[in-house]
Amino acid sequence: MDASLFEKNGIVVGKNCIISENAKIGENACIGHNVIINDNVEIGENSFVGSNTILGEPTVGYYNDSEKYEHPKLTIGKNAVIRSGCIIYSGAKIGDHFITGHYVTIREGVEMGHHCSMGIYSMVSQNTKIGNYLKTQMYVLIADDSVIGNYVWIFPNVVTTSDRHPPCSRCNEGITIEDYAIIGAGCAFVPGVKIEKNAIVSAGSFVTKDVKGGMVYAGNPARPICKATKIACEKGLVKKVYPWQDRYCKGYPWDKKEE
Amino acid sequence: MDASLFEKNGIVVGKNCIISENAKIGENACIGHNVIINDNVEIGENSFVGSNTILGEPTVGYYNDSEKYEHPKLTIGKNAVIRSGCIIYSGAKIGDHFITGHYVTIREGVEMGHHCSMGIYSMVSQNTKIGNYLKTQMYVLIADDSVIGNYVWIFPNVVTTSDRHPPCSRCNEGITIEDYAIIGAGCAFVPGVKIEKNAIVSAGSFVTKDVKGGMVYAGNPARPICKATKIACEKGLVKKVYPWQDRYCKGYPWDKKEE
Amino acid sequence: MDASLFEKNGIVVGKNCIISENAKIGENACIGHNVIINDNVEIGENSFVGSNTILGEPTVGYYNDSEKYEHPKLTIGKNAVIRSGCIIYSGAKIGDHFITGHYVTIREGVEMGHHCSMGIYSMVSQNTKIGNYLKTQMYVLIADDSVIGNYVWIFPNVVTTSDRHPPCSRCNEGITIEDYAIIGAGCAFVPGVKIEKNAIVSAGSFVTKDVKGGMVYAGNPARPICKATKIACEKGLVKKVYPWQDRYCKGYPWDKKEE
Repeated sequence: MDASLFEKNGIVVGKNCIISENAKIGENACIGHNVIINDNVEIGENSFVGSNTILGEPTVGYYNDSEKYEHPKLTIGKNAVIRSGCIIYSGAKIGDHFITGHYVTIREGVEMGHHCSMGIYSMVSQNTKIGNYLKTQMYVLIADDSVIGNYVWIFPNVVTTSDRHPPCSRCNEGITIEDYAIIGAGCAFVPGVKIEKNAIVSAGSFVTKDVKGGMVYAGNPARPICKATKIACEKGLVKKVYPWQDRYCKGYPWDKKEE
Repeated sequence: MDASLFEKNGIVVGKNCIISENAKIGENACIGHNVIINDNVEIGENSFVGSNTILGEPTVGYYNDSEKYEHPKLTIGKNAVIRSGCIIYSGAKIGDHFITGHYVTIREGVEMGHHCSMGIYSMVSQNTKIGNYLKTQMYVLIADDSVIGNYVWIFPNVVTTSDRHPPCSRCNEGITIEDYAIIGAGCAFVPGVKIEKNAIVSAGSFVTKDVKGGMVYAGNPARPICKATKIACEKGLVKKVYPWQDRYCKGYPWDKKEE
Repeated sequence: MDASLFEKNGIVVGKNCIISENAKIGENACIGHNVIINDNVEIGENSFVGSNTILGEPTVGYYNDSEKYEHPKLTIGKNAVIRSGCIIYSGAKIGDHFITGHYVTIREGVEMGHHCSMGIYSMVSQNTKIGNYLKTQMYVLIADDSVIGNYVWIFPNVVTTSDRHPPCSRCNEGITIEDYAIIGAGCAFVPGVKIEKNAIVSAGSFVTKDVKGGMVYAGNPARPICKATKIACEKGLVKKVYPWQDRYCKGYPWDKKEE
């Protein structure tokens, strides 16, 4: 344990922290330095909260009337690793085993399942529904009102949108990404598209239409290329590449080591 | 008001703040925790400054001779909402009703009008001139020496550049975006291009030439597609989509509620 | 010197800093406010460390067993300017004259030469080998296991990847960028590609194959356009544009002023 951390009421806490008296912090939690935890935050046991992180960032109502503002509840499950510099809003609900890189922002109204991880500088906009085991890498923007299934991967620098003819507040819709889908680096998505189960969107694609299940799409605009099962490993190191869940097990429920 | 904030000289201030004695903070301001406000910062009444924000970040001269360095003046108008984690340099001038997301960086020499808002992780480079009512979303980079008019929208993950044959320090120029223009998500711009009044650059475009007024451009490289007035709402919810200012009023001077 | 900084043991230090007793900080260093410097950090003389920066961010082992965790050594050379909000991991090795923008993240296992600079919101992933004089601008992601030569420029919003058929942990490889290469804004790279010496990748390119030395590539997918020596300055301000090192000297070893 860092010499600069100290123990208080069964929790390890760093220096200069500002923690609301009504925040509920589970056993064996470890809080870094300069951490701000506001009212109505609940975080489960065995969790880490990195330095300079804010849990319970106020929603817009705070700026309208900060005197009367009450923080909506923020719930984060057990075994979280929230790395330094994150900002998680009041009014979000996040499952167990949540892992982040640095400077991740999670907005209010987000509901996220268990075992999700978000890469550095990523952001989940408000009212997004996310299943279990989402993994994003860096600079990923999940637009408001998106719906994401289970076991989805999103690689770096992916942007999704929610406004078909901006600016508009009438026909906004997020995107839908179904189970096991893979989104490659540098992709962009127009609002309302659906990426079906087991689909692969290749890096650098601009997606303007629905992506069919089990297919590989690529290009600007993205077009269907082949079935995912046709992809071979150029180095011959992997026999059957897709569906990826048949060969990649570490940390997943189908990992035999975990049984 | 958060229990952890306290009132001092008519201003609400959080913990661990480092505020220069010569900073001028308007009445009814609310400063979060761990905020740094350096010399020669002036921020207007009714403003919020989020936790972990730095106002008056030193310019490069500080690193050359920190003993003799004096902070150039940073002016921010009244009714600002600067969310947590922002860094605003000394030597910028920002109007009233400025709103930011988190981790926004504004460099020295920037001049920005009233009612501008910048999304999370966005950056305005040095010496940029911006009119009133600019709205950017997340991950937007406005390159140095750009000139932006009034009522411009820039959607997420847009990058502008200022160097035609990099690296070069002789023929740099920013881009120009005229009034009411819309820049879609994921666009990139070469230096020196002009986006004319009421133009729309569709999401995912790479813009290498000027974009004519009132036209829609798309693609890599971006080409003219149609007149903006030809765009229809796919859902039929909006009758006449563009010019957007004829149908989208909330918060704008032409909003009848505000009259 | 800022009134809010104070001198201690020959080092200027701001408020609320948390600095390990065994950190080695060179003479004439200047540390901002709220800075965290963990165990086994060594930073050279005449360096600046901006406010809210973390040096010696713990690697993943910390979350597995924080009691037994020992910070691997982080070495940063002399004359560094690390601007506010950066996070540099334990286990990295960085040369002299390192300069960063804000919110830069450098992961463990990175080895970086002298005179490198990283733009705001940029990230270097683990185990990357970087030569001298790398200059990146904002939002640049250098993927794990990449190899970058000397005098390389990377412009804003560039993403590199390391996984050919994600998710995979067996055939990952970074990209290689050789000496004097120029990577334009908004480019993306698939894993394993090599950008050869003196090559130019134009802004907005998606690079799927090796880029030959001294050539200009552009497009999605990127294709060879011409020899770099064929590029002319549109404004006629620069006679011979490339190789850039023949005309751009400031701060480089071939700058006559520095002789």
